[in-house]
Amino acid sequence: MAVTMNKNYAKLGKNYLFAEIKNRVASYQAAHPQADIIRLGIGDVTRPLPKIVTEAMAQAAREMATAAGFRGYGAEQGYEFLKEAVRKYYAKRGVSLSCEEIFISDGAKSDIGNLTDLFGQDNTVLIPDPVYPVYVDTNVMNGRQIVFLPADEENGFLPMPGPETVGDIIYLCSPNNPTGAVYNKEQLQKWVDFANARGSIILFDAAYECFIQDDLPHSIYEIPGAETCAIEICSLSKKAGFTGTRCGYTVIPSALKRGGFSLNAMWLRRQSTKYNGTSYVVQRGAQAVFTPDGEKAVEENLRYYRGNARIITQALEEMGVYYTGGRNAPYIWLKCPPSQDSWEFFDRLLSECHVVGTPGAGFGSCGWEYLRLTAFGTRKNTLEAMRRIQNGGVFR
Amino acid sequence: MAVTMNKNYAKLGKNYLFAEIKNRVASYQAAHPQADIIRLGIGDVTRPLPKIVTEAMAQAAREMATAAGFRGYGAEQGYEFLKEAVRKYYAKRGVSLSCEEIFISDGAKSDIGNLTDLFGQDNTVLIPDPVYPVYVDTNVMNGRQIVFLPADEENGFLPMPGPETVGDIIYLCSPNNPTGAVYNKEQLQKWVDFANARGSIILFDAAYECFIQDDLPHSIYEIPGAETCAIEICSLSKKAGFTGTRCGYTVIPSALKRGGFSLNAMWLRRQSTKYNGTSYVVQRGAQAVFTPDGEKAVEENLRYYRGNARIITQALEEMGVYYTGGRNAPYIWLKCPPSQDSWEFFDRLLSECHVVGTPGAGFGSCGWEYLRLTAFGTRKNTLEAMRRIQNGGVFR
Repeated sequence: MAVTMNKNYAKLGKNYLFAEIKNRVASYQAAHPQADIIRLGIGDVTRPLPKIVTEAMAQAAREMATAAGFRGYGAEQGYEFLKEAVRKYYAKRGVSLSCEEIFISDGAKSDIGNLTDLFGQDNTVLIPDPVYPVYVDTNVMNGRQIVFLPADEENGFLPMPGPETVGDIIYLCSPNNPTGAVYNKEQLQKWVDFANARGSIILFDAAYECFIQDDLPHSIYEIPGAETCAIEICSLSKKAGFTGTRCGYTVIPSALKRGGFSLNAMWLRRQSTKYNGTSYVVQRGAQAVFTPDGEKAVEENLRYYRGNARIITQALEEMGVYYTGGRNAPYIWLKCPPSQDSWEFFDRLLSECHVVGTPGAGFGSCGWEYLRLTAFGTRKNTLEAMRRIQNGGVFR
Repeated sequence: MAVTMNKNYAKLGKNYLFAEIKNRVASYQAAHPQADIIRLGIGDVTRPLPKIVTEAMAQAAREMATAAGFRGYGAEQGYEFLKEAVRKYYAKRGVSLSCEEIFISDGAKSDIGNLTDLFGQDNTVLIPDPVYPVYVDTNVMNGRQIVFLPADEENGFLPMPGPETVGDIIYLCSPNNPTGAVYNKEQLQKWVDFANARGSIILFDAAYECFIQDDLPHSIYEIPGAETCAIEICSLSKKAGFTGTRCGYTVIPSALKRGGFSLNAMWLRRQSTKYNGTSYVVQRGAQAVFTPDGEKAVEENLRYYRGNARIITQALEEMGVYYTGGRNAPYIWLKCPPSQDSWEFFDRLLSECHVVGTPGAGFGSCGWEYLRLTAFGTRKNTLEAMRRIQNGGVFR
């Protein structure tokens, strides 16, 4: 008789990780008002936007006040000027795309969530553990069966498919959030071959590709065969400081087909029906990121964050602590001292060093004895935090 | 074995309306290069953004280049400054909301599409015909049963619920796209009472509320009881020229519950999981719309469009043509001459008057003998188009 709600929402775990961190930090601070607490747990950037980006946005805004410069509805999949900039960015790495394979969005989180619309409810979803919680939650909302792929010290937090592996929809995030681990070409080739043989689809989250310094794949399309099994989602959030400005892009090759459907055509229809394009002003800012001066400015910020990562990893190495990430990723995933789980160690770091990390348990059951630090703080805070950790003896 | 796709996508009708219009206009223009074609079919605005809005965006962009002014991730549901501005906008009309009941988005189309996530697949969806095609397509994508509610000359294109009416999810759009018809308080009260009695949910699309001049409800929350049965979706697209800038808002009262679920809490969880908030720069522009100077500038543009609507409706009245809309809406829905369907009349207007309208058939089967004109053109073009139509004798 009455309307029915989507009952899968009742199966969602509480979205409590960052709220719980906030509560614990707030109550510690209340009890210790003098404590100078440093937050190295946040996944948000701190460097301002490059001037070339903000000037492009200001200019675009001013255009909109003129009859000649006003822009109404744009194409749902983005302006050609930005798709062309993204196309060239891929071309530099030897990945040849057409503009019709590139979809501009307001960020990777939206696309990762909305892409689940394209698939049947009866698929099995393969998700690494630990992982960015959005992969899990968006599929719980759809009622799909989820299988976890354990990542651990043994596989270097880079799990591979085996003869028993199942999964119709496979999430891979490389460089990984939260572990900072990065797949090499041979490993990704195995995943691509697995997906093509099985008829699976890989959703490849490349949001951190810009942090790669070594000879490792930035895009899954550097791997032969990926165009028939993979969708890639990327973002300007971490690359160019767009966490509050909102712009990303998703690549769906025209060769990607399943069950008589072109996934590119389905996504175009999905976006044309449920999205009205990314703000013109924001797209002009994003375009500036891909200019030579924009790339220089972005590189300067990335160098700053990489410097922070080096400070963190050097300190961990001096203390003999196991970790992944940091070199090709903004995340450092470190092992807690023996017999301390991630929340216990979180509390100890907070009370003894006044440093806030992110407990690994928040990213999945395989994270229970790990903690994530990020390179997104200021240089001063990063140096001071690691000094305190080294002097505090929490790892002894 | 292999991944399965969402087979409902195969049931979608071709998204051909505006493509077909474009094709017909292009081939006519190619055959008649001298023809000065006027487009009065478009649903996009033409007036530039008010300077106060673009200056607020330019200022916000520049802030983002400074360490002190940089903003990273904002709340997924929007900044307090904008929610507060929307709250006050409702308060002026006597509608009392809390900021937690207001969700800022990148536009009404996204929210209308994504709100379907909250409901079970087994609901019957009641959709007026003719109507904005997004309501139909987003529910076809979810495989829900759709029942159409015929709107016609007899009910003044304002269909009402009767003893036989079914519908768990009910779409109402007032002022209506495409008919421009507007429900009065008594009519909306009947819909609210129907939904509350039945346990249904009304999705109330208020995207054109700013065009209302008479004493008619702008918001469904002006109707007692709406807070326990209705979600309202609104937008700055038509009000303030944001079609390319992208900002809207959705209201979900905290009193709205079904089957043990709070719809407000479900939407907060949906948006926190699949959305990362509207661009800060855009939200600052939207905030400026609600300032006294912003409202003045918006009112000036609305007056311009209303003037166009008056030119169109006066001409129709002089010709004795039946129409709805125009007075409290930017759309004028006119009846084609006897024995001409909407595509035939479209072709005739194009070839005899060089004027482009939108064939009513594109909005549903009840639109087959109607045509939509819009008030969004320039004054000069609107005057000239109606002069040609009056002189052309297409209605004789």
